[in-house]
Amino acid sequence: MTTAPAQDAWPDTWPDSGIGPLVDHHCHGVVRHGLDEDGFASYLTESDLPPATGTTFFDSQLGFAVRRWCPPLLGLPAHCPPADYLARRRELGVRKAAELLLRATGIGDFLVDTGLPGDLTTPDELASAAGTRAHEVVRLETLAERAADTSDGHRSFLDSLATAVQEAARTGVGFKSVVAYRYGLDLPPDPPPPGEVRAAADRWLAARAPGGRVRDPVLLRHLLWSAVATGLPLQLHTGFGDPDLRLDRCDPLLLTDFVRAVRPTGCPLVLLHTYPYHRGAAYLANVYPHVFTDVGLALAHTGVRARTVLAETLELAPFGKVLFSTDAYGLPELYLVGARLFTHALGGLLTEWVDEGAWSPGDAARAARLIASGNARRLYGLDSPGPGA
Amino acid sequence: MTTAPAQDAWPDTWPDSGIGPLVDHHCHGVVRHGLDEDGFASYLTESDLPPATGTTFFDSQLGFAVRRWCPPLLGLPAHCPPADYLARRRELGVRKAAELLLRATGIGDFLVDTGLPGDLTTPDELASAAGTRAHEVVRLETLAERAADTSDGHRSFLDSLATAVQEAARTGVGFKSVVAYRYGLDLPPDPPPPGEVRAAADRWLAARAPGGRVRDPVLLRHLLWSAVATGLPLQLHTGFGDPDLRLDRCDPLLLTDFVRAVRPTGCPLVLLHTYPYHRGAAYLANVYPHVFTDVGLALAHTGVRARTVLAETLELAPFGKVLFSTDAYGLPELYLVGARLFTHALGGLLTEWVDEGAWSPGDAARAARLIASGNARRLYGLDSPGPGA
Amino acid sequence: MTTAPAQDAWPDTWPDSGIGPLVDHHCHGVVRHGLDEDGFASYLTESDLPPATGTTFFDSQLGFAVRRWCPPLLGLPAHCPPADYLARRRELGVRKAAELLLRATGIGDFLVDTGLPGDLTTPDELASAAGTRAHEVVRLETLAERAADTSDGHRSFLDSLATAVQEAARTGVGFKSVVAYRYGLDLPPDPPPPGEVRAAADRWLAARAPGGRVRDPVLLRHLLWSAVATGLPLQLHTGFGDPDLRLDRCDPLLLTDFVRAVRPTGCPLVLLHTYPYHRGAAYLANVYPHVFTDVGLALAHTGVRARTVLAETLELAPFGKVLFSTDAYGLPELYLVGARLFTHALGGLLTEWVDEGAWSPGDAARAARLIASGNARRLYGLDSPGPGA
Repeated sequence: MTTAPAQDAWPDTWPDSGIGPLVDHHCHGVVRHGLDEDGFASYLTESDLPPATGTTFFDSQLGFAVRRWCPPLLGLPAHCPPADYLARRRELGVRKAAELLLRATGIGDFLVDTGLPGDLTTPDELASAAGTRAHEVVRLETLAERAADTSDGHRSFLDSLATAVQEAARTGVGFKSVVAYRYGLDLPPDPPPPGEVRAAADRWLAARAPGGRVRDPVLLRHLLWSAVATGLPLQLHTGFGDPDLRLDRCDPLLLTDFVRAVRPTGCPLVLLHTYPYHRGAAYLANVYPHVFTDVGLALAHTGVRARTVLAETLELAPFGKVLFSTDAYGLPELYLVGARLFTHALGGLLTEWVDEGAWSPGDAARAARLIASGNARRLYGLDSPGPGA
Repeated sequence: MTTAPAQDAWPDTWPDSGIGPLVDHHCHGVVRHGLDEDGFASYLTESDLPPATGTTFFDSQLGFAVRRWCPPLLGLPAHCPPADYLARRRELGVRKAAELLLRATGIGDFLVDTGLPGDLTTPDELASAAGTRAHEVVRLETLAERAADTSDGHRSFLDSLATAVQEAARTGVGFKSVVAYRYGLDLPPDPPPPGEVRAAADRWLAARAPGGRVRDPVLLRHLLWSAVATGLPLQLHTGFGDPDLRLDRCDPLLLTDFVRAVRPTGCPLVLLHTYPYHRGAAYLANVYPHVFTDVGLALAHTGVRARTVLAETLELAPFGKVLFSTDAYGLPELYLVGARLFTHALGGLLTEWVDEGAWSPGDAARAARLIASGNARRLYGLDSPGPGA
Repeated sequence: MTTAPAQDAWPDTWPDSGIGPLVDHHCHGVVRHGLDEDGFASYLTESDLPPATGTTFFDSQLGFAVRRWCPPLLGLPAHCPPADYLARRRELGVRKAAELLLRATGIGDFLVDTGLPGDLTTPDELASAAGTRAHEVVRLETLAERAADTSDGHRSFLDSLATAVQEAARTGVGFKSVVAYRYGLDLPPDPPPPGEVRAAADRWLAARAPGGRVRDPVLLRHLLWSAVATGLPLQLHTGFGDPDLRLDRCDPLLLTDFVRAVRPTGCPLVLLHTYPYHRGAAYLANVYPHVFTDVGLALAHTGVRARTVLAETLELAPFGKVLFSTDAYGLPELYLVGARLFTHALGGLLTEWVDEGAWSPGDAARAARLIASGNARRLYGLDSPGPGA
């Protein structure tokens, strides 16, 4: 591997590369409170279960990547023991540590999915900690569950939901669906008839305990098509995630008929994460003009292997259709690691391809700007670069 | 990557390597007329839709590969802007540009699937432009549609079809099926009973508009088994292609029961393209004596990543079961790029494996000859090398 | 590739690396008799069919890997012709050749699946030839077939089977299931009700010819849950194998609901082989505490590509959940090749990752010890290292 030239040409401090600030088109909030070692480690996995006896979540590509990239920003040597790192973090305080990490990411715009529960920062708080801008991406299933909380029948539920979708289309830059978790991607592709939607709403509302999640496939399809009608980009979780999903029902190719059904509307569909089905997602981005793809979650979780995963995505995906995201959640470390792994991986690939004469330097820089920020700015209508780092 | 030694040992001008002319066991014709920039770009994707707003099909691995390998053959610097390249191409004229590109491919035999519509060269015209030989591969679905054009019921249809298959078996070197596009690979494996075939033929002929395509699964199975009965190699499209197919229904493993059903006949089955399911295709080639595989289409479309895709195929596929093809269509550039990416990828891999002591130089050269031409010559009964370049 | 430093840091003679003896947590016995060239070659493929005309099983990654690693141990140059190697092997005799090869593997403990028929060594004989230790892994389907051989109805069959499972739990270190071959992994996940088991047993016993294999999905589920009840690790064949299986029905993700159903019992599930679905298997090991994974069979069969396959597994699989195995069977060469490819691949990866600063040297050594032996020792309760090589 030509690591050394890669680092020369594409410094890990991305802003120095001339590529400009990144747009992280999919992330979440940061936890506001301090965390002990187990609490911190619980964010290093998609699992919601304890680690196996005799093992720790730190012993993973993500754990090693956090220990590689983060300690130096808090004044410690790379790869120092987790306990040392967490002690230093406590010493600095939650807010200060978050600022040090977030301001080093090189991210100029955060697109924040606000649909996760928990003691998390709002987009404005995240922007303030990072010294940059944030925008909201609205989670469809959360809108439905909020509407259900205050509804007593399908009429008030569907009215509230419609109002919430319209409001979100005005305040947000896009929608997000976790239908992958709630049902799987193997849904019938078409908008459900209104009568079916009303009946499904009544069934769900009647059976629903407070806080109950929407899992009814008719309602989930109604949510998707409500978002499509706004024309804003619709982000879809695909590929791996926590054990609440069945991975083989999250292959983005299961969305093919939905992709075809949406095509006449022109509404952009953005396939998130996609691993280990990222080659299939790249195929969809290749052949359908309205499909975009990323490998957000996968870059952080595969650590030193992020370069290969990104390269596999860049086999079929046109360079105008690939987006950057961290999918970071909870730990400010995850924004930093997501950004570093992305810039390091992309820089390494482009340097390698330029070195062997396969790409010209000018094309490489242009493709890097598209993937790092240009595609997201065009897709989400972000007028100009954020203030950056 | 040890790019430099790779280039020394396996020069991009493949004929100089001592490996001899390539056999391109699956390609199509070249367009006879000139093309403007959009027309040219439309051949750089499998999509039949326009590019997304703000993007171009040139910004893809295939687009960059064309710009890497082709301009120098027309007297321009590698990676020159598309407009310059297309201007030079117009200056030379369609025929001269095609000759310059085709004669540099190192291909000695073209096996041409003649089933595509459009203003394309015949095999003889292609051979003449390339200064070498061509052979015909007959597309089954086209035979059926031609028979339907002149039939008024199942009897005349099935008779014409049977005659056409016999005639094709005499003039061609193999058959090709696009059942992947017309239905998917998840067909019942066995030959359909004659009564079902007659009924399906009558249904189709009655409902068919002029030029209508055969999509009936009973007729598609009848076509496959008609070809199997001839004993000639049967090429099957698998894996990615244009948006007319559903990729997840083109996994070659869906053919497993068909592979088993064909096994007693000894008829060779050749899995084309296979990406991103090429590891599964390689598995079938490993465990079934009558299964062969290639990664034709995938090499051109993945560009600088062709080496990895080929390496993944060479994990399980025995070296006596892998074939080279370009799947080139329309642009003479695609034959050149397909051939260059193949020789560059294979040369790079073998050099790497020899350098680290994993393969002996003699074995590497022998495996290269098998994959580049020997396997295809044995499989399709091509007596001797073509005149080559 | 930084092959040279890799070899310095992680010598192919693994014992010198300081990592200590390997635990091969899944293998079989060695054939006791001599083999001619065709007999030897038949062990170089998972196929039970003859090679295609004009090809040989030696022309595969496994064939080349055997010729790379084995001849030097018998005093011949690497990559010498198969005939020379086999002549030397005959000269030495079956026992002596086996000893030379097995004692060079660096394996200190063999966990032997004794469920394969044929003239194979017992675990004790294998241990004696290798000068080290062996433990038994009991194949569930073999227990059922043995019980069926001596039963005249469901009562005696189920009693014998229960006794055999209990006995195996006392003498063995784990169970193995080949449900992948007998049915596929897409079984209903739950324990079948006793009434269904009794009825299925009667049906099978009534229809069974002597030696008949168990393929009834109710009985196969009963076997799985009988093993789960013991709490011992349960090894499951997943991914590629011989043509008796359908590869697409061996995707380990098809086990997801079974994994969830077993979770409350705490019984460890060990996914064997997994290729080409190893990334999905690694995902299961990531999110479920009781799931472990390996790429045993795949390392030997992909030869020089073993490094990439292992790297793909190490993307999502936590380092405390990955095991080493050779899945060797029949030829002592396969134990040697499996061990060499593993240590070479792992050493190469870790050296690369340490060289580029992604992993610390201490973490790399620790992860290597876990994967090479520590995880298996913890999982199977092997008290201390075997005598090693």
